[in-house]
Amino acid sequence: MSTVRTRDGLFSVIAADLTAVDDRLQEPVERSGALLQTVATYALASGGKRIRPALLLLAARASGDGGPDQRERAVTLAAVAEMMHAATLIHDDIVDRSAMRRGRPSANARWGADVSVLVGDFLYSRAIQILVADGDMRILQAFADATVCMTEGEVLQLQLLRDLKISEEDYLRIVTGKTAALMSAAARVGALVAGASMLTVEALAAFGLSLGIGFQLVDDALDYVARQERLGKPVGSDFREGKITYPVIHLMRTASLADRAVLEELANQADLDNGDLDALRALVERYAAVPATMRLVDEYLARARTQLSAVPDSPACRALHRLVDFVRERDW
Amino acid sequence: MSTVRTRDGLFSVIAADLTAVDDRLQEPVERSGALLQTVATYALASGGKRIRPALLLLAARASGDGGPDQRERAVTLAAVAEMMHAATLIHDDIVDRSAMRRGRPSANARWGADVSVLVGDFLYSRAIQILVADGDMRILQAFADATVCMTEGEVLQLQLLRDLKISEEDYLRIVTGKTAALMSAAARVGALVAGASMLTVEALAAFGLSLGIGFQLVDDALDYVARQERLGKPVGSDFREGKITYPVIHLMRTASLADRAVLEELANQADLDNGDLDALRALVERYAAVPATMRLVDEYLARARTQLSAVPDSPACRALHRLVDFVRERDW
Repeated sequence: MSTVRTRDGLFSVIAADLTAVDDRLQEPVERSGALLQTVATYALASGGKRIRPALLLLAARASGDGGPDQRERAVTLAAVAEMMHAATLIHDDIVDRSAMRRGRPSANARWGADVSVLVGDFLYSRAIQILVADGDMRILQAFADATVCMTEGEVLQLQLLRDLKISEEDYLRIVTGKTAALMSAAARVGALVAGASMLTVEALAAFGLSLGIGFQLVDDALDYVARQERLGKPVGSDFREGKITYPVIHLMRTASLADRAVLEELANQADLDNGDLDALRALVERYAAVPATMRLVDEYLARARTQLSAVPDSPACRALHRLVDFVRERDW
Repeated sequence: MSTVRTRDGLFSVIAADLTAVDDRLQEPVERSGALLQTVATYALASGGKRIRPALLLLAARASGDGGPDQRERAVTLAAVAEMMHAATLIHDDIVDRSAMRRGRPSANARWGADVSVLVGDFLYSRAIQILVADGDMRILQAFADATVCMTEGEVLQLQLLRDLKISEEDYLRIVTGKTAALMSAAARVGALVAGASMLTVEALAAFGLSLGIGFQLVDDALDYVARQERLGKPVGSDFREGKITYPVIHLMRTASLADRAVLEELANQADLDNGDLDALRALVERYAAVPATMRLVDEYLARARTQLSAVPDSPACRALHRLVDFVRERDW
């Protein structure tokens, strides 16, 4: 899905602000050295879906339209959300040794881990600096809490690599860290910028969290169904990388003793060939692991809709509702 | 030099507070997962010289003794300074592919780049979270500015690797980023915690900056003289890694055309054997590159002493003066 398509449809109510975010993302690196500028600009370049900035802008708009000053602040903070997201993507590509990101070589593949580590650090530090200049401690807290949760979740994922006995609780902690924490922060910050009531702030933060968990669960389900042309990676990549996600948790709960033994054998293999992947796919199919994951997705998205019902109707609120549908239906 | 020796001598006036910092450094990881706890604790473990926490505590004490509450805050913030330092060390070890750190295997060597990237990110995010809880925006700004400067300096160093034409200005920017920015922030924050006047705050921040530049310049000089047993790395490591530091800048300014050609050839070689290192050492010796560096060190340390003269005499202020002497004389 291209950014353009989302802007014309889903995010049309904030299209102008999203363009302003893209412009704003040029500024943080303007006074830095040539290499830093090149790599940071590459990492921030359009091509991403800008879901976190959009969430922040929509949450702000749904909480009331405070005029040009508020809009300006929301754009700045939406850019910060994207900078933080870009920082984690750069570092994730080192962690996962990914060669590709958003259809291009990853920064890690192009400039090496040394440059990538530092550019990620720069983007995060620069984001904090912008938040300090903005001057709202509650907003700083929202982002700081999110990044702590993100790093805790990512390390937990490494700790539980290849662990078929992973609990649903730990899995959800990882999912929250990977995706939901920053989405929740973005929605919370949007509400804070608009001076929303505590009730609305918490409702939108909870909405972002549920939406984010649903979003990541769909990702984890798609890993077992999506075709290579779409995601740019083969089916079962997560399992190959040792990441045990909900479809496999479902298998471990419902599969026969013999099938679980097969799964354990696959998980312990250093490398999976095509035959192994066929065996994995067959298990996922036999025990309907993808539909089971989508049932959990539906639970979280139902929660997201309920949480959103605390927010008064408006074009922005309706766009947030459509975002929920979109997360359910996406298959790019 | 062991931590114990510094605590008994140089830092004796804040010895109790430094012990409190060590205890405080256990807390930030207490509620995180097992792997994160293990690696973060390893990275934060004693063995470092705790110069940044000491600088913060001494600056606070030199700015006035505000009683137990202020002391408690200073300990918290000193722990933050060490967390940020530890975060950059973990990431630096990935950048430099260092196998050793403080006489032990680096986190990178022991747990891999994937874990190290994330644990560094965690320590930095957790540090920000603690600063948010502390609630002083000026302190957040001091640390945020320092980390932006640090990452800019580190990337600039990579950009100018093997570039014998590096300007002194760019070199000092790298030196500032590597060491002086965080030392300056530590001294500034110490003064801020103690509610010092703007004049004292700026004097101590400037002092930390000069001291830090002197500190790093000594490091860069020692790389060409220190024996392997002391630093745990061979002479000329910086040059081998492509890092052009002041001794080489001095050579490029003063050496004959023929000798500069030798230097250029050495800089372009993928790997230096013992004969190459002897040739490098001979050039450094012939043009007195180390004494030239130490003259620049003396300039910065003289500045540091002048800046410190704005601070009223006290045991803590005298300890800061001794820290200046110590930076000049250290050769561990």
